[in-house]
Amino acid sequence: MKNAIVLLSGGLDSATVLAMARADGWKCNALSIDYGQRHRVELEAAARVARALGAAEHRIVALDLRVFGGSALTDSSIAVPTAPSPGIPVTYVPARNTIFLSLALAYAEVTGSDAIFTGANAVDYSGYPDCRPEYLAAFELMANLATRRALEGAPIRIVAPIVKMTKADIVRRGTDLGVDFSITVSCYNADAQGRACGQCDSCRLRREGFAAAGLADPTRYRL
Amino acid sequence: MKNAIVLLSGGLDSATVLAMARADGWKCNALSIDYGQRHRVELEAAARVARALGAAEHRIVALDLRVFGGSALTDSSIAVPTAPSPGIPVTYVPARNTIFLSLALAYAEVTGSDAIFTGANAVDYSGYPDCRPEYLAAFELMANLATRRALEGAPIRIVAPIVKMTKADIVRRGTDLGVDFSITVSCYNADAQGRACGQCDSCRLRREGFAAAGLADPTRYRL
Repeated sequence: MKNAIVLLSGGLDSATVLAMARADGWKCNALSIDYGQRHRVELEAAARVARALGAAEHRIVALDLRVFGGSALTDSSIAVPTAPSPGIPVTYVPARNTIFLSLALAYAEVTGSDAIFTGANAVDYSGYPDCRPEYLAAFELMANLATRRALEGAPIRIVAPIVKMTKADIVRRGTDLGVDFSITVSCYNADAQGRACGQCDSCRLRREGFAAAGLADPTRYRL
Repeated sequence: MKNAIVLLSGGLDSATVLAMARADGWKCNALSIDYGQRHRVELEAAARVARALGAAEHRIVALDLRVFGGSALTDSSIAVPTAPSPGIPVTYVPARNTIFLSLALAYAEVTGSDAIFTGANAVDYSGYPDCRPEYLAAFELMANLATRRALEGAPIRIVAPIVKMTKADIVRRGTDLGVDFSITVSCYNADAQGRACGQCDSCRLRREGFAAAGLADPTRYRL
């Protein structure tokens, strides 16, 4: 069985990605990042998801991105918007995917993994530059020059299986694979019990995804 | 004046790079990473170097790479070698430069910086895959797809001004630019006062560099 790293946020997208990787026969090492995000209850969700979907292990790396700020997710003085806005949203965290994929690359090196799975999605989050396929392809090229394993002839693949799927597609695929979405947390403003605000971009996209898929929304809202 | 990020380890190489960037007219934001390294006294050296060479600011990001291990620098059960060995040395830290450059990219994004300076060197450390010019070029390509600033037409450059210099060249250049190398720490096994062991690879290369440059070695050894 081949090893993979799966970046796991605790949300709906990455839970589906983990289920897809497992269904594809990968032994999965899950990685979550405690980066000082507002929605830290995500990390507890990530641990539940890793357990429920049979990850071989789950590691959490602490990295305080609040030292840089620049995002509504890492700077408490910037409010999370409750309505869509044009351009790249203020919830964009500078270089976040690059940092997370780099940490996954280190984990891949020490575990002898051949792939890194990411829940990057270019459809619903088209404003985030580091969710686009051309970005992910460039990261893969760089990664294959970066490590001892790559030099020794064992390439690494960056796998983004939901990058071109709509939220409804993702919800359907996850449901088909038996993912219990009630244990996931997507909300940027979730409370300490993991209950969603129902108003932020992430809540809106998630709710619309269940509606478009014609499936009941199991999200626990606090309203 | 244009902004740059300078990755500063507290050692001889990155101190010289900061001096080169300053001499070139850049406003420099220095970045150091507290990654659980054995030689943490480096971080105090980095703060001294940032001050002495006029960095506009100096930030330290905490990121515990011991969660991955796999290197003599982050796993206390792996000894630091005291003699050269063939192949990639055990002091190689998986994906370290990729992680550090990614953090510098986030810092560049929030400070509106046009360049990231790194002390990567492909001559003395030719065993490290992530110190080679082709790796750095691939990182730059990826970085220019990763950020909001890049999308908005402000490219980022990865500048590695000493990548092809010998240690003697670096020592000479730093000396010409007035770098006080006595405040830098390169040793992998430095004690709490920053005194060098004189035996590890890093000490050996540094000592040979001063000798080849025909300059007095100001390093404080504990022997």
